[in-house]
This record gives sequence, C-alpha cells and structure tokens, in this order.
Amino acid sequence: MKNKYIVIGGVAAGMSAASRIRKIDKESEITVFEKGNFISYSACSMPYFIGDKNMPLESLLVLTPEVAEKERGIKVKTNCTVVKIWKNKKTIQYIDNLTKKDYELEYDRLVIATGASAIKPPIDGVDNNNVFVLDNLTNGKNIKEYIINNNVKNASIVGAGLIGLEMCEALRKLNINVNLFEIQENPLKNFHGKIIKIINDKLKENKVNLIYKTVVNKIEKDYLFVDNKKIKTELTLLSTGIKPNSKLAKDAGIELGIKNAISVDSKMETSISGIFAAGDCTESLNTIVNKKVYQPLGTVANKQGRVAGINAAKGFARFKGVLGSFQLKMFDLEIAKTGFNKEELSEYGVECEEIHITAPSTAHGYVERNPIDIIMTCDKRTGKLMGVQMIGKSGVAHRINIVATALYNDMTVEEFSNMDLAYAPPFSPVWDPLLVAANVLKSKVKIYS
Amino acid sequence: MKNKYIVIGGVAAGMSAASRIRKIDKESEITVFEKGNFISYSACSMPYFIGDKNMPLESLLVLTPEVAEKERGIKVKTNCTVVKIWKNKKTIQYIDNLTKKDYELEYDRLVIATGASAIKPPIDGVDNNNVFVLDNLTNGKNIKEYIINNNVKNASIVGAGLIGLEMCEALRKLNINVNLFEIQENPLKNFHGKIIKIINDKLKENKVNLIYKTVVNKIEKDYLFVDNKKIKTELTLLSTGIKPNSKLAKDAGIELGIKNAISVDSKMETSISGIFAAGDCTESLNTIVNKKVYQPLGTVANKQGRVAGINAAKGFARFKGVLGSFQLKMFDLEIAKTGFNKEELSEYGVECEEIHITAPSTAHGYVERNPIDIIMTCDKRTGKLMGVQMIGKSGVAHRINIVATALYNDMTVEEFSNMDLAYAPPFSPVWDPLLVAANVLKSKVKIYS
Repeated sequence: MKNKYIVIGGVAAGMSAASRIRKIDKESEITVFEKGNFISYSACSMPYFIGDKNMPLESLLVLTPEVAEKERGIKVKTNCTVVKIWKNKKTIQYIDNLTKKDYELEYDRLVIATGASAIKPPIDGVDNNNVFVLDNLTNGKNIKEYIINNNVKNASIVGAGLIGLEMCEALRKLNINVNLFEIQENPLKNFHGKIIKIINDKLKENKVNLIYKTVVNKIEKDYLFVDNKKIKTELTLLSTGIKPNSKLAKDAGIELGIKNAISVDSKMETSISGIFAAGDCTESLNTIVNKKVYQPLGTVANKQGRVAGINAAKGFARFKGVLGSFQLKMFDLEIAKTGFNKEELSEYGVECEEIHITAPSTAHGYVERNPIDIIMTCDKRTGKLMGVQMIGKSGVAHRINIVATALYNDMTVEEFSNMDLAYAPPFSPVWDPLLVAANVLKSKVKIYS
Repeated sequence: MKNKYIVIGGVAAGMSAASRIRKIDKESEITVFEKGNFISYSACSMPYFIGDKNMPLESLLVLTPEVAEKERGIKVKTNCTVVKIWKNKKTIQYIDNLTKKDYELEYDRLVIATGASAIKPPIDGVDNNNVFVLDNLTNGKNIKEYIINNNVKNASIVGAGLIGLEMCEALRKLNINVNLFEIQENPLKNFHGKIIKIINDKLKENKVNLIYKTVVNKIEKDYLFVDNKKIKTELTLLSTGIKPNSKLAKDAGIELGIKNAISVDSKMETSISGIFAAGDCTESLNTIVNKKVYQPLGTVANKQGRVAGINAAKGFARFKGVLGSFQLKMFDLEIAKTGFNKEELSEYGVECEEIHITAPSTAHGYVERNPIDIIMTCDKRTGKLMGVQMIGKSGVAHRINIVATALYNDMTVEEFSNMDLAYAPPFSPVWDPLLVAANVLKSKVKIYS
C-alpha cells in the first residue's frame, strides 16, 4: 500500500515538505493543494520584481506544477482551497476555485503550510481596487500591473516595517512619489535610535515623504486622508503586518499558540499526531530566551518545511528554533538584526548591558571606507551575548550571521572578542567592528561565574 | 617605584602591547624600540598603497611616535635595534642606527614583538637594487618609489602566495606587465583544484603571465632568467614566505617552537618568566587540532599583543588560539579559508569527508547573481566541521567568518545546517550557500556518537 500525503500550501514550506517526503518515501502519493496560481516562488523577491519593469514574473518561480509533477512525482492542485480537515476519517475537503466544485481526499499524513495573510487595518476604503497588500505573488503581480496600466505617479505605503521599507526603494526606482505612513514613532520594530536616525535620513535623502505617528483615516481613488489633510495617492500598499492562516487547523481541533500560530513540537508535529505544520502559519521556539515566538520569514519556512516533510515521511529531523535573524537592503544601506535588544529582553525579565559603536568598514588607508553602526547587547550578569543590530553601506548583511552563529552557540562577549576572524584590508579593519564592539561591551560587564 | 616596561618592535603586536600596558599600569615607564622608521602601520594595506599612486604613505600610519608619546605616554625609539637581552641583569642593549652608538636600558618586564622577515631564496642577483621584499613599510615605500622613479613597465613576482597574488592586482593597476613565478604547481597553499582554477583563470583574464613549477635562476638589471629563457623585468618582488625574527630571543635562552617561532603559553609568556612575546615572531595554538602552528597575520599579532601587554602589566588575559582564518581580494574575486582541508587534516591523522558545491550569491530572481564555490570539510567519524574555503565575486569575505565562529564552537555539520541565518534576496539565496554545503556534506557522514 502506498502512503498518501497531503500538503496544504505550495509555496516555501509546503513544497519543501513535499520534496523531502518524495526523497524518503519514494513510492508514495503526494498531493499539494495551493489556493493561488503559483507554487514555490521567491516571495521575498517581490519588491525587486515590482521595482524592476524588466524583471518577468517567471524569474521568481523556483518550480512550476508541471515540473513538480514530472520531475518529483508530486501532484499539485493550484487554485484549490482546502476548507476542512476531517481528522477522524483522515480526509480533507477542498473546493476547486475555478469550477467551485467540492471534493474530498484521503490522507495518511498531512502537512499544513497555509502561510499567512496581510492584516488589513480598519481604514475607510480599504477594499478599493487601488489598495493592495503584498502577501502572495498574485498580489505582487497585481500591484505591478496596476502601476503600469494606471501610470501611477503617487503612492502611499501604510506601515514602515521590513516590507514597507523595501517597497519604498522599489517604488522610488520607478520614480513614483512615495508617502510612508507609520502609526508608531519609528520605522521597524526594536531598533536603536542611532539606527533609526540613519534609516530616516536615508529615506529623506531618497525623497520618501515620512509621516509617522499618524493614523490613515480614509482612502479614495486619488487621495488618502490623514488628520485633516488629504494626500495625493493613486495606489496604497498596506504593510502593517501579517497573521498566520491557522483557522483551518483550529477548526480541526489543532492547538494554536502565540499570536494564533499553529503550535508545533520540534518535529513540526501539531497537537494531532500525524498532522504536521510548517512555515508562516506556525510558531517557532526562540532559543535565546527559550520562548515561543512568531517569526514568519522565508528562511524559517524552508527549514521548517524540510523538517516537517522528513518527519511526516517517518525520517528523523528536528527544527532547532530561531534567533530572530533578519536583514534588508534599503537603497544603499544594509540593515540587519539577530537576537534581542535591551528593551525586548527586559520584557523577558533579562537585565542587559548594551553599547553603540561606529566603526569603519575597511582597513586604515583603504580608499573605500564607510561607517558601520553596531548595537551589541549582553546579559548583565553572565556576559552572554544576546543580540546585535547593525547598519551600514557594506559588510553588514553577512557580518550579522557571525553573530547568529555566536548566539546559536551561547557565546559570551568575552569569548566572542577572542575569535580568529579572517581579515583583509578591503573587507574590514584589522580589529573587526564586531570584535571592537565586544571588547567595549565586555569591559562593562562584571561576570558572576 | 615605577615599573619599567620595554617593548621590542613597534608595529602591530608591539604597539598593541604598549597601549594595553599603559591602560593598566598608568604610572609606568614604557619604552618601545623599533629598528625601522615607522611604528603602528597597516602592513596588510601595503599592496593597496603601492597600487595607488595617489595614496600617501601617511594614510597607512595608525600612530606616530609623537602621538604615542604625547597621548599615551609611551616613549618610542625608532631606528634603534635591540641587539641583546641580558636576562640576568634584566637589561637590553640597543644600537642607535643613525649614530651607531650602543646603549643599555633596564626593564622590569619585557615584550618581544620583533616580527618576521621575508625569506630570500638563493637566487643569483637576489641582492640587486631592483629586487625587493615586502616585509615592512620602508620596503613598501622603496618599491613604490622605484616603480615611479624608474618608470617600471615589466615586473616579476616570485612566489604566488597571499602577498604575491595581492601584488599582481596592485602592479596590474599600475599597468605594469606582470610575470608570476611559483616553484609549486599551484598558487596559494592547501586550496582545492576547483578554486585554484578560478584563481588562475582570473589572473590570466587580467593578463598576468603565469609561470608555475619553475625555479628562477638569476636576476639582472633588465632580465630574469628561468630554465633557458630570459624574461624582461625591471623589478622583482620576492614573496616566497616569511620567517620569525627570533634570534634575539634564542640568544637570550628563550625556547623556540614550530618553525623557530618563539614558544609562548596562553598568556603570551615565554619560557623566561617576565618576558612576553607576540606577533609574527611567535607561534600560535591552532584550536581545531590542538597543535602549535606558525600563523603570522595582522589580526593575530594585534590580539596577541593585547594579551601580552595585559599580562605583562599583571592584568589577566588569555590568547585562545587561531583557526587558520585568512582572506584576500584579488581583482574582483574574494578568496577565503578557515580551518583545514582534507589533505592538511590527513597529516594530522584526521580522516575527513569533503565536498564541493557551486551556489548563487543572491536569491532566485535577483538580477546581480554570481557563483560562489565552497569546499567544506568535516571529520568522517564525528561530523565535526573542520574547515571551509570559498571563492566568488561577493559574499565570501564575511561569510567565511560565520564558519570561523562555528569552528571556534566545535559545531558539527548537522548543527551548522540548522542555523537561523539572516536572509534577504540581495545578499543570499533563501538557503545560504554555506547551509547548502552543510546539508550536502552531512548526508555523506555516518555519525558515531
């Protein structure tokens, strides 16, 4: 008897899971359901696709349903929405979105990878056809087409998080006037004032109109209303966060965890044996504080999908958790963070020391030389490294992963300051900026060991 | 009574030591002896100084004797060569190179940071005035002046190590024809054939004339002779390696270690109590194989100098050792290595698995995308990560330090493959190339735990 696997969701986590199942259980039947048109695409690249008129949609597609079926023997049903999991009889019920017909299919083991959806704030006009979110490729395609077809000259972005900032660059590349709205005082969450200032200056330098601490009231065809002003805008992007698509799981009696994400163990198995979950619909363990968090990112989705697939096929794998690593490019700046800062940690009850340094990106005498700003945080009592955030024109994006590796290994700043890092003048000063930061930070900590 | 410190050598290790002593022992007398003209300069930047007509020598100077004396209270005696250490009476004897006069000075504690000297191979004509080595700034200055004053059009580099390759780029920038001679079959030591091929192709693309497996017989004013050919060359750089300046220490009865480098403990103290040593004249512990090695690099010298200074001043610090991390830029390539490869480890009796992968530098769909080649090595029995070497146009130099951090923490490839590394499309594919390599490598290892 062949094992029957069903995977709900065909993007990062879902297709990773399906591919792993195929590797282990070569004779099985694997069916992937995807409610949208596209599977296995680079969602994180959507801002670059929108900002570049010459980039075809196809360049984001890692795998098509045809190739998945032909080369990996994975059946893919796009435009099919799974509406119910019958856990006792082990079937799922789905609707073909094109024919509206209703079907049922049996499974032996199930992987839920339903992703997340953009949160739409309660703004008057939020469902107008010139208001968009960017939570899947169909939406990305629609934004790009709308800009071209309507010759958009003025746009508004509501929410100055990662997507909001990346989209500022994308729209400015298209020479569109951009208004960036943020309900909070600052862009991004949990970044230090020194870094926030550099981000804001860069946005202004690129003529992004910053409107912070402001609530958008209403969106019309050509205007958006805040306070008592109206602002010319033909297109509005809502980037105010995402929420896990966990209702299907919840209705099946599967336990939810933090922020209503699906609760999973380290095998990515849900509270119902034989049902796994992965990606933006699930929670993750943050290994620094040993607490569940919601960290919906592409890297995590791929890794979780892989682990879910291996265990669904009765292999053996564990998802070890997350550190809160993320990064973005914004104009000519690299911005990155891993671990926690002092304020975040005080919420977990950890008292910290934190320092800020500015260090050059290359060696003394080397011509190209830019400042890198580093905030480094450690536990006040143990000296354990807890997080770093960085900004600069170069040498930030990969450098943050040196810290991620240190966090994974529970290094103290004292240990970290000793590391034999490779060095050459075009890439770093002889004392790497991270080691300089560690040396400054460790001098502030009295260790109780 | 003020403590009297003497530091022999005023470049990276020596000035680091002197500065740390001052921080801890604020009232002490500190005298640094430097046989050359310059102290505390960026030696690794010399190829960039030579290759850029507009870069003044001053831009390499981190600290001048005047500033050291004024701001740090460190007496610096340049052009003074220490010729003897009288360990019983605790004095040193030195010669003022300008007056040729001979002096003696007392110390309570001594730091030896005498650096290293270039090895001159036994070639006929090796002492001609058009033959250079690049082991200190005076030599760097002389090379640059010779090129300009003699309008050099053809040059030869003997030895295709790190300095040899960096100097290929420097001289090609000046539009000088370059012949690169190497006695071995390949440039650099201990690099994989896949990487060597990319390096050789890049050198050829930049019109460097590669002459490997060849011994240079004779150097004259306008020609260099190999086999039975003569090759037009007005300047020859010998870059065939360096050896520690350890004779002064040896003559004082201090124990030498590997490759005649000064033997030190983790406090950087020599076999004679109260005499410390640091930098290119000393050996280091490689923590991967737990064996002494000779790794004369600027980063190591700075760290060792700091530790030597702290302990000389009766503070507390340990130098934890090295991993073999190094990197270089060569034309538009980044080349980096940390840890060991399979062949090196077989000499230490460790049996390894090793894989090669080629992965893209950025995400699916992102326009700028270059290949990165990675060789990853792990212990065959334990799966412990042992080394990585990489080459590519971007994303190599800092990425190697992710591996260095993993090596410092004795990670297995299995653990390494799980790490939550930050990701954004301009900087990496969603699966970082290093994680892809770890996933491939771990599938080859059967773990016995």
